[in-house]
Amino acid sequence: MKCGSALNRRVPAGDDRLRHVCDACGTIHYSNPKMVVGTIPVYEGRILLCRRAIEPRYGLWTLPAGFMENEETVEEGARRETREEAGAELERLSPFALFSLPFVSQVYLMFRAELAGPAFSAGHESLETRLVAEAGIPWGEIAFPVIEKTLRLFLADRKTGSFAFHTGTIDRRI
Amino acid sequence: MKCGSALNRRVPAGDDRLRHVCDACGTIHYSNPKMVVGTIPVYEGRILLCRRAIEPRYGLWTLPAGFMENEETVEEGARRETREEAGAELERLSPFALFSLPFVSQVYLMFRAELAGPAFSAGHESLETRLVAEAGIPWGEIAFPVIEKTLRLFLADRKTGSFAFHTGTIDRRI
Repeated sequence: MKCGSALNRRVPAGDDRLRHVCDACGTIHYSNPKMVVGTIPVYEGRILLCRRAIEPRYGLWTLPAGFMENEETVEEGARRETREEAGAELERLSPFALFSLPFVSQVYLMFRAELAGPAFSAGHESLETRLVAEAGIPWGEIAFPVIEKTLRLFLADRKTGSFAFHTGTIDRRI
Repeated sequence: MKCGSALNRRVPAGDDRLRHVCDACGTIHYSNPKMVVGTIPVYEGRILLCRRAIEPRYGLWTLPAGFMENEETVEEGARRETREEAGAELERLSPFALFSLPFVSQVYLMFRAELAGPAFSAGHESLETRLVAEAGIPWGEIAFPVIEKTLRLFLADRKTGSFAFHTGTIDRRI
């Protein structure tokens, strides 16, 4: 990736794990967990959900979320994903929950947020976007356990009128 | 990294950024921000600091922290780094602060924690480890702004008797 040569797998000096090493230029290419940043966008009490237009879990419902990109902050990534997947702009982001998904080497960071206005639209990774009240959440058609967990924590906190910051581990993808 | 062939840089179909693509096997090798996980280990009110035995910032003081590894949770990574760099075991980890460092494409997640006992020792990346009271913190010799910021937030919260979860952006390495 640096000099373009092929890579070998070995344990570098002073390390204790197999890494991808370029024996041409000496660069060690580390593989580390990826961060997924996303939001719970709320407008007049309803939550903005997206129906997935891509695999995995095509046709099921999720919150706007995706891989954080280099050279952005977590908030910038969460706003970008919400813009790309749901055509929506956000106000007042607050960190809400952080989940480790060790089986896929991912960490999810989800923000609470308010929609800046009633404008939203399906991006190219979404079949449709919809504002749903709590009673309208399609619990049987939520794409991922990490999204269901986020929604349940959000609704439970909202009932108490006080939002905490949550952390946890998710041990399955679907 | 998957088939071992050399990689090319181009924008894959449906994407909007340059990625490293293997034209032999078709795999897209994404580069994303890395997470650094670390701790503020406390024993009888004093904080465990490590003096760096490696570059950058050799000889300066820091908190135990390092790159999260694949297939671990954020808490497991924070415990591992504290064990590796400071020879210490932790109890009662609480997420304390999350910082974006977009200029190096990193995200720091720092936990508050109690030392399980008075045992600690310098790992191979540390010259020495030391428990310091607030008055003994070597402010002029802290290795990184993100560590100084974490320590100042921790001490300020401790004075009030109530710990919040903090987020922010750090815009310089040293």
